[in-house]
Amino acid sequence: MDLPIRYRLARVPAGLPDAETWTRTQEPGRAPGDGELRLAVRYISIDPAMAGWIQPVRSYAEPVRVGEVMKAFGIGEVVDSRSERYSTGDVVFGLLGVQTEVTLPAKGLRKLDPKIVPLPKYLGGLGMPGFTGYFGLTEIGQPKAGETVVVSAAAGAVGSVVGQVAKISGARVIGIAGGADKCRYLLDELGCDGAIDYKAEDVGAALDRVVPEGIDVYFDNVGGATLDAVLARIRRHARIVVCGGVSQYATLAGARGPANYLQLVAQSARMQGFTMLDYLPRIQEAAMQLGALMMKGKLKTREHIMDGIDQFPAALELLFAGGNHGKLMIKV
Amino acid sequence: MDLPIRYRLARVPAGLPDAETWTRTQEPGRAPGDGELRLAVRYISIDPAMAGWIQPVRSYAEPVRVGEVMKAFGIGEVVDSRSERYSTGDVVFGLLGVQTEVTLPAKGLRKLDPKIVPLPKYLGGLGMPGFTGYFGLTEIGQPKAGETVVVSAAAGAVGSVVGQVAKISGARVIGIAGGADKCRYLLDELGCDGAIDYKAEDVGAALDRVVPEGIDVYFDNVGGATLDAVLARIRRHARIVVCGGVSQYATLAGARGPANYLQLVAQSARMQGFTMLDYLPRIQEAAMQLGALMMKGKLKTREHIMDGIDQFPAALELLFAGGNHGKLMIKV
Repeated sequence: MDLPIRYRLARVPAGLPDAETWTRTQEPGRAPGDGELRLAVRYISIDPAMAGWIQPVRSYAEPVRVGEVMKAFGIGEVVDSRSERYSTGDVVFGLLGVQTEVTLPAKGLRKLDPKIVPLPKYLGGLGMPGFTGYFGLTEIGQPKAGETVVVSAAAGAVGSVVGQVAKISGARVIGIAGGADKCRYLLDELGCDGAIDYKAEDVGAALDRVVPEGIDVYFDNVGGATLDAVLARIRRHARIVVCGGVSQYATLAGARGPANYLQLVAQSARMQGFTMLDYLPRIQEAAMQLGALMMKGKLKTREHIMDGIDQFPAALELLFAGGNHGKLMIKV
Repeated sequence: MDLPIRYRLARVPAGLPDAETWTRTQEPGRAPGDGELRLAVRYISIDPAMAGWIQPVRSYAEPVRVGEVMKAFGIGEVVDSRSERYSTGDVVFGLLGVQTEVTLPAKGLRKLDPKIVPLPKYLGGLGMPGFTGYFGLTEIGQPKAGETVVVSAAAGAVGSVVGQVAKISGARVIGIAGGADKCRYLLDELGCDGAIDYKAEDVGAALDRVVPEGIDVYFDNVGGATLDAVLARIRRHARIVVCGGVSQYATLAGARGPANYLQLVAQSARMQGFTMLDYLPRIQEAAMQLGALMMKGKLKTREHIMDGIDQFPAALELLFAGGNHGKLMIKV
């Protein structure tokens, strides 16, 4: 049997990660100790937050250090168990890392049922991106029927859940995405009331046309010029949910702040950040809500699956170029 | 009797207002119509928000147009009344404008009692700046006992109320101000636990020293580099109250956004703007709370009073240079 493959942080990039950010190593795994499991990794989740996880800056979690295996969410199958809660063949979700095999404590993993939905859904709409969109929108955005909700990266794993849940809450929903394909997907599949292709037109001008009434809730995944364009058009008591700022990850050192932030004063508005960590105790609630919507066909998500762990550097590049269609992951 | 003097907007400045921003006119007033009052203006409030009021940008109120009398809060004495609610000699507060005399509807004015406190207090601690600090801190900042509160422009009209009310709520309070005099005032008179002189030292380094535990509540009047320094040091679930951004008023066109705003995500924190307009129906509550504190000697405020309406352009310059000590106003 081949030795497990692992991708380790070779050096911290100045901007976005590239091929030289990683070292590929092959080395034997270890047998599980008491309370531990050995897992064969099946799927590795590729997420925008990865750019932040390797930067040695103050954040919600300790950064990955040079030499360590890259952090990643993933789905694994138990091949050896020293925990009484798990048996061989069980499927689990957790921080498994970018590697084909891992031995780690059973504590902190979550068991998945492969019979309910296909496994990739557990990394997308019924996983962290789905929960992130659900809690960010409902807890922080709090859209009311008749309000206008704008979401950026709207065709992405988080954004597509945000748009559909906002629509169900009775709001008017406008999605922003890059490219005609994604915009068609927003309108035809996700039921958005409007779509803005930021690669084809000026977002500010498009917002003036599509939401002349102004914006009540903005779910932001991108930051940069889009955030400023929205800030200039918020309504009184608007809520801006800050989920990420992917346009700024390439230039963390000289990141651009939202120059129009004083519109928060003019409109008595709020801009609030969050991570899924805030809602960990409530994952079951989100899973049930989103699962029920999915069963009823009211929540569509799609996955973009690349084949083989050695696609890892290319997958990240694709992600930050906005080239993926749906939740990006690697099938190991 | 001399004709009333008025200061009108001559042209919109590119940055902060200067002498050429204004035209001084002298022209007769008019007799009050039904429901109107004629007032002799006694005090004119000089406020940072004035820089925004003359910019033709989207804000909480219509901007002053070229040719119009400059908007200003003030205190006036009724010299002629056509309203049954007011008699000659009554003293009122309202948007009276930068002029020595004005005729306007009685509606929207507030009656003041000159016997309780000296009139200038009604433009400071017991007026809009005091109410602004009170509601912004208690409703948006929501400091809890034991938390750390940082306030910028802490020796100013709003900031000094914020610091003292935060202290009463049991928080540890650090004030940021410009100059040794103001910092001494923060420590000796206002009871701050720490003071940072932004003109003498790097605010980030000073915060590292004074609040190594991080910041729970930041009441921001200035924006710019100070806001970024604070964002880099917020604690989980921190609240940033955006009251103003006086450091950016000189360059509204190319205002600087807070580059560290993604710390809102990392720390699940909130940044929220507001204006006093949100709390107009609750002015009585604030007046009673702050009035009671002032009577008990627990709320100190000071006023910086300049003499004569023709000091108006110079007063604004002093304000934006941070040269005033306490609430700035003109005695007409």
